[in-house]
Amino acid sequence: MKVRLTGKPTILPMLMALPVFGEGFSELSYQVNNLWLLVATALVFVMHIGFATLEAGLTRAKNTVNILFKNVSVLSLGLLTYTLCGFSLMFPGFEAGAGEWFGFRGWGPGLGGAELVEPVRNVSPWSFFLFHGMFAATCATIVSGAVAERIKLVSFLVFSALFVAFVYPVLGSWTWGEGWLNDKGFHDFAGATLVHSVGGWAALAGAVVLGPRLGKYVNSSVKPIIGHNLPLSTVGVMLMWFGWYGFNGGSVMSADPDLVSRVFVMTSLSAATGLLSAMLCSWTLQRKPDLTMTMNGALAGLVGITAGADILPMKAAILIGFISGILVVFCISGFDKLRIDDPVGALSVHLVGGIWGTLAVGYFSETHTLGIQALGVVSYALGAFLPALALFWILKITAGLRVSEDEELGGLDIGEHGMEAYTGFQIFTTQ
Amino acid sequence: MKVRLTGKPTILPMLMALPVFGEGFSELSYQVNNLWLLVATALVFVMHIGFATLEAGLTRAKNTVNILFKNVSVLSLGLLTYTLCGFSLMFPGFEAGAGEWFGFRGWGPGLGGAELVEPVRNVSPWSFFLFHGMFAATCATIVSGAVAERIKLVSFLVFSALFVAFVYPVLGSWTWGEGWLNDKGFHDFAGATLVHSVGGWAALAGAVVLGPRLGKYVNSSVKPIIGHNLPLSTVGVMLMWFGWYGFNGGSVMSADPDLVSRVFVMTSLSAATGLLSAMLCSWTLQRKPDLTMTMNGALAGLVGITAGADILPMKAAILIGFISGILVVFCISGFDKLRIDDPVGALSVHLVGGIWGTLAVGYFSETHTLGIQALGVVSYALGAFLPALALFWILKITAGLRVSEDEELGGLDIGEHGMEAYTGFQIFTTQ
Amino acid sequence: MKVRLTGKPTILPMLMALPVFGEGFSELSYQVNNLWLLVATALVFVMHIGFATLEAGLTRAKNTVNILFKNVSVLSLGLLTYTLCGFSLMFPGFEAGAGEWFGFRGWGPGLGGAELVEPVRNVSPWSFFLFHGMFAATCATIVSGAVAERIKLVSFLVFSALFVAFVYPVLGSWTWGEGWLNDKGFHDFAGATLVHSVGGWAALAGAVVLGPRLGKYVNSSVKPIIGHNLPLSTVGVMLMWFGWYGFNGGSVMSADPDLVSRVFVMTSLSAATGLLSAMLCSWTLQRKPDLTMTMNGALAGLVGITAGADILPMKAAILIGFISGILVVFCISGFDKLRIDDPVGALSVHLVGGIWGTLAVGYFSETHTLGIQALGVVSYALGAFLPALALFWILKITAGLRVSEDEELGGLDIGEHGMEAYTGFQIFTTQ
Repeated sequence: MKVRLTGKPTILPMLMALPVFGEGFSELSYQVNNLWLLVATALVFVMHIGFATLEAGLTRAKNTVNILFKNVSVLSLGLLTYTLCGFSLMFPGFEAGAGEWFGFRGWGPGLGGAELVEPVRNVSPWSFFLFHGMFAATCATIVSGAVAERIKLVSFLVFSALFVAFVYPVLGSWTWGEGWLNDKGFHDFAGATLVHSVGGWAALAGAVVLGPRLGKYVNSSVKPIIGHNLPLSTVGVMLMWFGWYGFNGGSVMSADPDLVSRVFVMTSLSAATGLLSAMLCSWTLQRKPDLTMTMNGALAGLVGITAGADILPMKAAILIGFISGILVVFCISGFDKLRIDDPVGALSVHLVGGIWGTLAVGYFSETHTLGIQALGVVSYALGAFLPALALFWILKITAGLRVSEDEELGGLDIGEHGMEAYTGFQIFTTQ
Repeated sequence: MKVRLTGKPTILPMLMALPVFGEGFSELSYQVNNLWLLVATALVFVMHIGFATLEAGLTRAKNTVNILFKNVSVLSLGLLTYTLCGFSLMFPGFEAGAGEWFGFRGWGPGLGGAELVEPVRNVSPWSFFLFHGMFAATCATIVSGAVAERIKLVSFLVFSALFVAFVYPVLGSWTWGEGWLNDKGFHDFAGATLVHSVGGWAALAGAVVLGPRLGKYVNSSVKPIIGHNLPLSTVGVMLMWFGWYGFNGGSVMSADPDLVSRVFVMTSLSAATGLLSAMLCSWTLQRKPDLTMTMNGALAGLVGITAGADILPMKAAILIGFISGILVVFCISGFDKLRIDDPVGALSVHLVGGIWGTLAVGYFSETHTLGIQALGVVSYALGAFLPALALFWILKITAGLRVSEDEELGGLDIGEHGMEAYTGFQIFTTQ
Repeated sequence: MKVRLTGKPTILPMLMALPVFGEGFSELSYQVNNLWLLVATALVFVMHIGFATLEAGLTRAKNTVNILFKNVSVLSLGLLTYTLCGFSLMFPGFEAGAGEWFGFRGWGPGLGGAELVEPVRNVSPWSFFLFHGMFAATCATIVSGAVAERIKLVSFLVFSALFVAFVYPVLGSWTWGEGWLNDKGFHDFAGATLVHSVGGWAALAGAVVLGPRLGKYVNSSVKPIIGHNLPLSTVGVMLMWFGWYGFNGGSVMSADPDLVSRVFVMTSLSAATGLLSAMLCSWTLQRKPDLTMTMNGALAGLVGITAGADILPMKAAILIGFISGILVVFCISGFDKLRIDDPVGALSVHLVGGIWGTLAVGYFSETHTLGIQALGVVSYALGAFLPALALFWILKITAGLRVSEDEELGGLDIGEHGMEAYTGFQIFTTQ
């Protein structure tokens, strides 16, 4: 079975290396693997519903339309820029072992025409492309929470389009595209670093350049700004958990029964312990268990296990989740002490959780070293943070990054969209 | 492998024609194909959650219980009438090439008993039946948005039951049941016309017979009536997008890896471009990007690609989505100019999008002609609109179609159900 | 293919007995079966989103954070206690035919290490474990609705942890773990009794020990306490229906095409008729169709068919759903007459529906007897109710089971969590 796609002769050699169930079964096995990847792709789509509702619920009613708008439009932008150039930047057909940093197969995904009848071994290039397109959009949407309630819509959209079109896929090629970090043995199973931390670093850059929301840090005190709809947020967290079965499970890139099943179990247990440790931690510190903290604990557990769900034993998954849940509680107040305003806790969940999970692979796994994992973490820190900082800074001095004070106080829903989220409800807009 | 179902000897010959992966794999291939169809069926179910929440959010708080009630009860009615007679009207066992218009295999779905051990080649008759039952319910639920906030519950239920029991399946038999339009070469992959336009024509008939909501068109001006819960609507649109992977992907009627994957990609890209073109269009026309328009753009892109997601190339999918998104923005104001009151934009999304997508197959595909596609569009227009008009008119002069003015002003929740959707919240009921 | 798990040599012999598609296909068939079980597991997860939103919407706004918190934390507790000991209590490796009542394979799920490379025949032990872990959490979450708006959080969590860790799995071992009731021929396909009634009996114990909410029964009248967010509840019911395709469909424990498809059809039809019969019943009794009753009818239909969806014919499914929908309407007022306060109707749906569905198998099926089905129902009644009663009573006299009157009036959100669900909204807290 040959692979002919535009560009280099073998585009996805890593797919070829995955085990299949004996000769003779390959065509049907291919069908089953591909079916699972498609279902997983749809589940990753559900994570976007989760992001939209989580972020909308954790911010104020006057900014709800804007949050929702950002999330749905970034999903579309992410899919389209990934089609235009992201996919061929991320999977440029590097030679394994050549230690490459950059490659480009040309505009368009390079899937069309006659090549389609000759699939890669385990999954169709079409589903492989779409699964990774959903990942790209996920990375962009992580940013939206941290910059919420004060960023100009147009600048956010321009940033997202550029970051997903060029920065995310080049960084991705280093590991998943068989680039230099893959050659060094860096392991990031489903994107704790490649997706979540990369998005987290961009979110950090955005939050720093934007500055905090008005009234968040007054003199030396931190004023909590409470979300307006916790059922919506809870639905969001649970939908993200649900979608994570596709995010992690699909990253197996086959329907290998024991491996996908293991990944499901590890993902579930890390989420469950993250939830419970954040609950206990917030119960102890704040005397009452905080729903938002508790839910962020589950998400942190999910991010944490994403780096090693394929190779770590059950005890490691439980421990990773447990520590993720504690980290999230301390980091949320830590970022506040640094006066970095992150309305939904995206930095504590995705950035910190991603770093922790990636390093944990080096600690718990016998086949990977802490040194290489740390090298990957640092490389992605620089590779994501600096371009994001530059992009946000350029946008700040050109189109402007932040809405006016009046608009921020009145709400971005009226300011950016001329409409309200809850027409007819009596809402206190003074908050 | 023989097929024995009640009625004609070969009930689903079109299923037999689909490719399988070599002899010897047929039983397992059948298992995989069927598994995908079941998952797809569950995803189409999710579209009903999407319809319910989209419509509820885009209407006023005082009519929310009523909207939700209509959507859940129509789903049940649709499934049960399809069981009773719809399935055997829609798949009557026409002889291919005989150009038939009508057939009936008898009451009940004709699945029971000994026949079950002898399945059709690609999927189980049970899952085939249920998948199409979910489609039938989808057709009915499209109507509910356009007639919202003023139709009598009992009349709506009677209309839905009759339309789904008799009109939808007979129309469906013309193409999917191997009837005369199929013989002519009409192509409607997943129901842009058979489901969405047919529902749209019925919705148009309902909106025309009912007339606009009180206060919508005053003298020569159009008064916007704003939806009360945009997070709910956004969840709805995203759930519909999610479910559409089953709607279109399941319509392949097998788990053929490249074909289903292609369908997923085309569906995603058309939705994404529809969203962005509607965003740009509303941004240009209204100076600010409208969330509702933007989301309807995604839905229009989804409807548009439904006719040809299996055969069209990527560029066509992107172009179809792009034009769908523009059409929806202009049509929503166009219907208002015609004083046809459609509270949720169902006509612009499902009717216009369905017509456009079906014609586009004739334009973009090399194997289908614009003439035959137009013949299909016109045939379904007449076949759906006229019976719907008759049914609504008969209901109007018998049971009555519209609630009283007092009830409409006070809200259908109290009027039809004696309960409110948001007990305890302060809501302005004057709107 | 041998099975080596810790403890007894053959842990899951019932899995071995399921049909596979011919020799030679076993590895790929195993892969397909396992894929379906994983998807089904994710769908059962969705039921938890459904429970959370259904219960939150059917109670008052001041208790929303608390309800959501209970649901997400019980899910995590359930998964972790099932990992710790539940799984090895529920599947202890009984000898078939030995009529055993109790067994324990030791702490931990017993899945780790080398055994994983030798799977059971149809599905991976990992996915089998996780699927059943989601079931265990489901059982616990049924309780939360009936004890809502008045139970102390900490006592609820302790109860749930103990009940899921020890009571639920031992009871489960009697049937699904090949214990004495399985040997007698008791049939409960997907847990109408083992999950829903067991949860329902525990809910009854909790509701009785707690007593009604303040103001619910004043003198001889019943004061309705209306839920605050019916869109949220509707989403919940529909998500539960969606998830039920995994709950029932996954219980086949293979992707057997005709059997899983049949289960999907029976599940759909019973839900649909349950919805319609509850609608007609409430329309007749209350003069207007009640949305909450109607939705509970769908849920009751789902519970009812859960016992026999694998073996009953279509007519039985329709009849079971029909009677379930009527039962739920009468039982909800019946429990009120008994002054047992069940805020969300969990007893009428899960307890009554589970009993009815389990008995119906004895009535409609030719291979099972009403006597044995009744024996199972009574055994689980005693086995679940008495320990639950004891646990609740012990908690009442130690940690205390009920919040203070002040806290109940002010709402558990502030009392237990120090936060509100809808910050910024004007809400009448006097209700």
